[in-house]
Amino acid sequence: MEGCEIYRFSGQHFEKFWVTDPHRIKSHISEESKVWINIQDINNQTFMEEIKEVFNIHPLIYEDLTHPTQRPKIEFFDDFIFITIRMIYSPNRKLNQVKSEKISLLFGNHFILTFQENPEDVFDPIRARLENPQGKMRKLGTDYFSYTLLDAIIDHYFHILEIIVDEMEHLENKLLNKSKSFQLSAVYTQRKHIEFIRRNIWPIRELLSQWKKSDHHLIRKKNLIYINDAYDHCIEIIENLELQKESVNSLVEMYMAQLNIRQNEVMKTLTIIATIFIPLTFLAGVYGMNFENMPELQWQYGYLYTWVTFVSVTLVLIYYFKKRRWL
Amino acid sequence: MEGCEIYRFSGQHFEKFWVTDPHRIKSHISEESKVWINIQDINNQTFMEEIKEVFNIHPLIYEDLTHPTQRPKIEFFDDFIFITIRMIYSPNRKLNQVKSEKISLLFGNHFILTFQENPEDVFDPIRARLENPQGKMRKLGTDYFSYTLLDAIIDHYFHILEIIVDEMEHLENKLLNKSKSFQLSAVYTQRKHIEFIRRNIWPIRELLSQWKKSDHHLIRKKNLIYINDAYDHCIEIIENLELQKESVNSLVEMYMAQLNIRQNEVMKTLTIIATIFIPLTFLAGVYGMNFENMPELQWQYGYLYTWVTFVSVTLVLIYYFKKRRWL
Amino acid sequence: MEGCEIYRFSGQHFEKFWVTDPHRIKSHISEESKVWINIQDINNQTFMEEIKEVFNIHPLIYEDLTHPTQRPKIEFFDDFIFITIRMIYSPNRKLNQVKSEKISLLFGNHFILTFQENPEDVFDPIRARLENPQGKMRKLGTDYFSYTLLDAIIDHYFHILEIIVDEMEHLENKLLNKSKSFQLSAVYTQRKHIEFIRRNIWPIRELLSQWKKSDHHLIRKKNLIYINDAYDHCIEIIENLELQKESVNSLVEMYMAQLNIRQNEVMKTLTIIATIFIPLTFLAGVYGMNFENMPELQWQYGYLYTWVTFVSVTLVLIYYFKKRRWL
Amino acid sequence: MEGCEIYRFSGQHFEKFWVTDPHRIKSHISEESKVWINIQDINNQTFMEEIKEVFNIHPLIYEDLTHPTQRPKIEFFDDFIFITIRMIYSPNRKLNQVKSEKISLLFGNHFILTFQENPEDVFDPIRARLENPQGKMRKLGTDYFSYTLLDAIIDHYFHILEIIVDEMEHLENKLLNKSKSFQLSAVYTQRKHIEFIRRNIWPIRELLSQWKKSDHHLIRKKNLIYINDAYDHCIEIIENLELQKESVNSLVEMYMAQLNIRQNEVMKTLTIIATIFIPLTFLAGVYGMNFENMPELQWQYGYLYTWVTFVSVTLVLIYYFKKRRWL
Amino acid sequence: MEGCEIYRFSGQHFEKFWVTDPHRIKSHISEESKVWINIQDINNQTFMEEIKEVFNIHPLIYEDLTHPTQRPKIEFFDDFIFITIRMIYSPNRKLNQVKSEKISLLFGNHFILTFQENPEDVFDPIRARLENPQGKMRKLGTDYFSYTLLDAIIDHYFHILEIIVDEMEHLENKLLNKSKSFQLSAVYTQRKHIEFIRRNIWPIRELLSQWKKSDHHLIRKKNLIYINDAYDHCIEIIENLELQKESVNSLVEMYMAQLNIRQNEVMKTLTIIATIFIPLTFLAGVYGMNFENMPELQWQYGYLYTWVTFVSVTLVLIYYFKKRRWL
Ligand SMILES: [Mg+2]
Ligand SMILES: [Mg+2]
Ligand SMILES: [Mg+2]
Ligand SMILES: [Mg+2]
Ligand SMILES: [Mg+2]
Ligand SMILES: [Mg+2]
Ligand SMILES: [Mg+2]
Ligand SMILES: [Mg+2]
Ligand SMILES: [Mg+2]
Ligand SMILES: [Mg+2]
Ligand SMILES: [Mg+2]
Ligand SMILES: [Mg+2]
Ligand SMILES: [Mg+2]
Ligand SMILES: [Mg+2]
Ligand SMILES: [Mg+2]
Ligand SMILES: [Mg+2]
Ligand SMILES: [Mg+2]
Ligand SMILES: [Mg+2]
Ligand SMILES: [Mg+2]
Ligand SMILES: [Mg+2]
Ligand SMILES: [Mg+2]
Ligand SMILES: [Mg+2]
Ligand SMILES: [Mg+2]
Ligand SMILES: [Mg+2]
Ligand SMILES: [Mg+2]
Ligand SMILES: [Mg+2]
Ligand SMILES: [Mg+2]
Repeated sequence: MEGCEIYRFSGQHFEKFWVTDPHRIKSHISEESKVWINIQDINNQTFMEEIKEVFNIHPLIYEDLTHPTQRPKIEFFDDFIFITIRMIYSPNRKLNQVKSEKISLLFGNHFILTFQENPEDVFDPIRARLENPQGKMRKLGTDYFSYTLLDAIIDHYFHILEIIVDEMEHLENKLLNKSKSFQLSAVYTQRKHIEFIRRNIWPIRELLSQWKKSDHHLIRKKNLIYINDAYDHCIEIIENLELQKESVNSLVEMYMAQLNIRQNEVMKTLTIIATIFIPLTFLAGVYGMNFENMPELQWQYGYLYTWVTFVSVTLVLIYYFKKRRWL
Repeated sequence: MEGCEIYRFSGQHFEKFWVTDPHRIKSHISEESKVWINIQDINNQTFMEEIKEVFNIHPLIYEDLTHPTQRPKIEFFDDFIFITIRMIYSPNRKLNQVKSEKISLLFGNHFILTFQENPEDVFDPIRARLENPQGKMRKLGTDYFSYTLLDAIIDHYFHILEIIVDEMEHLENKLLNKSKSFQLSAVYTQRKHIEFIRRNIWPIRELLSQWKKSDHHLIRKKNLIYINDAYDHCIEIIENLELQKESVNSLVEMYMAQLNIRQNEVMKTLTIIATIFIPLTFLAGVYGMNFENMPELQWQYGYLYTWVTFVSVTLVLIYYFKKRRWL
Repeated sequence: MEGCEIYRFSGQHFEKFWVTDPHRIKSHISEESKVWINIQDINNQTFMEEIKEVFNIHPLIYEDLTHPTQRPKIEFFDDFIFITIRMIYSPNRKLNQVKSEKISLLFGNHFILTFQENPEDVFDPIRARLENPQGKMRKLGTDYFSYTLLDAIIDHYFHILEIIVDEMEHLENKLLNKSKSFQLSAVYTQRKHIEFIRRNIWPIRELLSQWKKSDHHLIRKKNLIYINDAYDHCIEIIENLELQKESVNSLVEMYMAQLNIRQNEVMKTLTIIATIFIPLTFLAGVYGMNFENMPELQWQYGYLYTWVTFVSVTLVLIYYFKKRRWL
Repeated sequence: MEGCEIYRFSGQHFEKFWVTDPHRIKSHISEESKVWINIQDINNQTFMEEIKEVFNIHPLIYEDLTHPTQRPKIEFFDDFIFITIRMIYSPNRKLNQVKSEKISLLFGNHFILTFQENPEDVFDPIRARLENPQGKMRKLGTDYFSYTLLDAIIDHYFHILEIIVDEMEHLENKLLNKSKSFQLSAVYTQRKHIEFIRRNIWPIRELLSQWKKSDHHLIRKKNLIYINDAYDHCIEIIENLELQKESVNSLVEMYMAQLNIRQNEVMKTLTIIATIFIPLTFLAGVYGMNFENMPELQWQYGYLYTWVTFVSVTLVLIYYFKKRRWL
Repeated sequence: MEGCEIYRFSGQHFEKFWVTDPHRIKSHISEESKVWINIQDINNQTFMEEIKEVFNIHPLIYEDLTHPTQRPKIEFFDDFIFITIRMIYSPNRKLNQVKSEKISLLFGNHFILTFQENPEDVFDPIRARLENPQGKMRKLGTDYFSYTLLDAIIDHYFHILEIIVDEMEHLENKLLNKSKSFQLSAVYTQRKHIEFIRRNIWPIRELLSQWKKSDHHLIRKKNLIYINDAYDHCIEIIENLELQKESVNSLVEMYMAQLNIRQNEVMKTLTIIATIFIPLTFLAGVYGMNFENMPELQWQYGYLYTWVTFVSVTLVLIYYFKKRRWL
């Protein structure tokens, strides 16, 4: 559905509507209230081009907005701050169904613009909190509003992290139980997921760090406590990812060790069997020879003596293997 | 048992009691003396909510206090300093029975609040020292008091480190003696323990470093010597953990090498046996053939010659293996 | 073709011509317009020597200009800025046909000199934009012009990166499908390509960083937004290259693991066959012996009993292998 | 022997004696001369407690002095500088007989206190130099005196480094000559020695660096040239240790490669023998069967033909192995 | 030959002679001209001691001059600058015949002292340039002169680097062609060469960086362009060495992979042969048994049926191996 979602609010006042004509958007921005304009489809080029024109967006920012793999960053301009970031969420808690979407924020003194790739997002709790007239969302500035958006996004990184941790435990258990369903490729897939999250959370940490250090007029000192908290959460996610990464490496190492140990067992079995029976077979072969003159063959207990030899050789070898701890 | 432990003391004065009604706590704080309020169960939500209200704790700090995996940190506020940290101890010196608990400190000019997950802690020596009217604990400020709490916690990291070192020596000895009870998974468990301690001590080092550099009014210059000493202890623990980590890696490497060396031995045994007996068995097989016209079979010493061949081939091969250093 | 390409332009004015006599070049530089002088063959020594003389180029800069493996850098002089960089492009999107060429820029207030190794380059879109009288290229300064050149070069690093990513997916698929055409040497070649790009893009990032921090009079503050954007692109390329590098390492690791797994299977097959048949063969050998007195040979069902033994031993061993999960 | 060694000296004057009563020590310190007080047994608790009292040593410094695993560090106080460090020496140039001892220095304007774990030390050359009335030791300040002590200690790190280098060459030669006495565990012991030295020299480098940067009144600018020189020596030791560490890793890698190469040889031998004789044995077995109707058995040259087949198969297989470079 | 080489020169004037008496050297230094004094044998102790006395060299500098393994560094003194560095050259472009020699520079306003271990050096082009009265060497200061010496030395690092690169290509080709003359130990030797160069060029980079940042009166701003250029060359050498180091590691990894691949092939061959012939041999053994009552032996086509079984089993196994891609 073309258009964008608009929320206009102040301490007392709250309004929510849908605008399809980009040229109408700007009229909703005023000094008296704050406006959240949520554009839900940056791939709708004609709409976006009009937005660009209406808000007079610099071509380079426009490129960053629409470039699908733009890396997360924050940029400070005279009248507004621009943030681009990756939003990750998994509706059904499955790693292979994680959805990932670029989302950009652009906030000035009285407005917050958000640009998404599709209508789905993680902001429903924020929409609910907005309707509460006593809530901080209605009173504090656009920097606090932007923080709540970032915080919601970061919280979903935690959810994904939890799924990764669960999957890791699953893999570790499989390996410890020497389950046949353990697949090394699953470990590599896990490593790729971790790497993907890590690549997206690191620059968020960096942009929050820049936010903390910035002295831009849109950033209120008293709201920095919230940014510090979000920063803390980033650090926690990063540290846990590092841990998961080391676990993946340990897992691979351990699997290779198990392979080696099992190969050792296989080789030992083969060697024990072969070492016992090859000499015996040789002996049987000897008395299967057809020489005319083989005195042993005429002995009365020749056959019995042979069996005594077979059993003795076997016992000696078993003793030898026991001593060498192969059995 | 609901409630919290309270110690009120000044140079001359010392008092100790138990308070169950959170609203009563604040009345014990005054300019004349210092108060240590030890809350022993942060998971008791109703009690904590009242504490939050009584002390007017910011929602973000409250979240940090109650969030079970909050990473260690220090935060400086106008009237107080907030520290959260992980306390580790093992009552019976067993690695698999290490107890770990989040503990938070919040100290102002006249009070020290501590928040634990359960009543058990490592502060009994401090409780004892408090009763001594000549002790520094009674005279120096709340920053010194907080230091003694941190110092007690850090000392227990040393204890855990010692258990790790002992376990490592145990593992190394098992490996050197080629004991069959050596399990690679034990090494990986060891690595996980080391990693767990390392993750918790690192941020303590960092928070002590921030404490040292801070010029907050609650931090007295002349007490910095104690913080320096605690910082030193952290560094020592960290360096020892690094060493243990390298030892774990060496152990894994050495175990894999041992596996390889043993597999080489197994392969050599098999190869020597097979290389000697396979040709002999072939020869025996030849003279077991039933061709009508096989002149050797009629020779008088045919059988003897065959045995001479068997022995010669064996001796030649043994000489060859000796030369190649396989025997 | 000896000589150089010259573009002279200002807001209103645009001119393009070819000059073969180096001594004529300088006369085209004037305060009223800007000039882009594109020298297409730095290996033409006589031409270059004359250029050196005409523009009075310092011997060390001249050395940097002509030294084929000079690493990318930026240097600030009183009247001009000197940049040298590596241009990479692949006309037919094949990794083994990537062309790489050193290119140097030297720009003052009214002129941009570029030095290439051969006429081919990535600047055709810039030539086209120059002809547009409304374009920024005609209005903004020589620093913006130089930026557009750098931007075009960096964009081609993205193209090469895409080829690398495609090739990597190709290799990963081959490995996952256990294709026999997978060659470890292809992975090492891939690693070399990644390393080559990485070595050339890193110093570009560094020179852009120096550009950003510089306060040289030729660098206009309001054009820094473009440099920031180019810097961003460099970071993106670098991060993707790191990712590719890790993928290469994972690929090698996974291939080695596959080899190991396959060897395990081979060894198991051998061991199962040998463990079953070696004892049976021994038994058959026993009853092939020619002792005169072997009672079993005269039994009526001796042969049948033997077959029963063969089958029983086989079944027991199969059961044993199943229990050990070798089958 | 209880007590401490005391040297009192100035330009003209020199005195040396032994004091057993700690309360007498302080009377030897005066403005006119400098005093070196060498306490040789920090484990003598009663003596140390008295020293602590006489010199009014802060409990934390006292703890650092007596704590056996205190890591090297420097601390600056108003009237004195405190250094603690590890002294290493090997009387008979054997790595497994290296002696290591914690040593602490505490120097003020007119005195140098040293605290050792036992009487043995590396300071005999300093004792000799002190007796020379023209020497710098008698003229320059206590910072120079402390430098000479540190320098003597650092020089012994060089000696230990030399022993490590010799041992490494010894190990490398053993490996290259494929000596059977080469033991992987010896390499791991070597790695532990290197790590031990490295852990002790690194903080010495750090403390010298702090000394260089300090502007403490006890540190004379003109004596910094000596500290720079000692710092240089530390760097040289550290770089050599890094090199040794890499050599150890190369050695392990090379040993594992040798194991692999040897296993390859063993496997090839087995495979060649088995591949040649197993088919031949099968053929011999065929003609050992007792079927009544086997025409070949009656052929006049049947036996001969069989030998021709044996030899041909062998030759073909040898040719095949040669082509595959297995022979 | 005892003594030292002296060059005295100014813009107009040039003189070259040999001095054997150290006490005569100082008389050649004057304000009107510059003097290069090249001492060619620092191991000639009596000569060096006299030089030390004549030039009043501080004992620590003297130690640095004569200590054979002193690491490269620069030190700034009031009247002179002291540089020590390692000079590397290979007269016949062979890696195992690289010559390496410590060389020290000490230059003041009017003199340059160089100290070598032996007369051989890389300065002949400089000697030639000195004779040119128009050259910069005669006009610019002693810092430029010292730069030309360093530049000559750095250029020879490039030569050695080229030899390393050539050797590496040689090794890579051997490996790719699976040449039997490839020796892993050659790769380790290569790694040692790379490490040796890297250890010596790194501190040169560092000392040039200190030179650039220094504001010593002997260092002229306008000559810094030359130092920048030399610094650039160092960076280029270092980056190439890093690349070579990675190549060495790739080479080892690739060789180990080749070993593994080859072992897999060997094992497969063995397994295929054994898996086909062991069951057949068993069957032949069965019909070689001497039971009186074996009905198959009397069948007319028993022997034929057996061969049919042999061939069928073989075909089935070959089909199985083909399906498993072992053939
Ligand atoms: Mg951009
Ligand atoms: Mg969306
Ligand atoms: Mg959050
Ligand atoms: Mg960045
Ligand atoms: Mg939060
Ligand atoms: Mg928080
Ligand atoms: Mg507790
Ligand atoms: Mg402590
Ligand atoms: Mg932090
Ligand atoms: Mg303490
Ligand atoms: Mg570090
Ligand atoms: Mg250059
Ligand atoms: Mg070109
Ligand atoms: Mg671009
Ligand atoms: Mg650089
Ligand atoms: Mg762009
Ligand atoms: Mg201490
Ligand atoms: Mg001692
Ligand atoms: Mg020394
Ligand atoms: Mg440190
Ligand atoms: Mg450090
Ligand atoms: Mg010295
Ligand atoms: Mg020195
Ligand atoms: Mg020389
Ligand atoms: Mg050069
Ligand atoms: Mg250095
Ligand atoms: Mg040059």
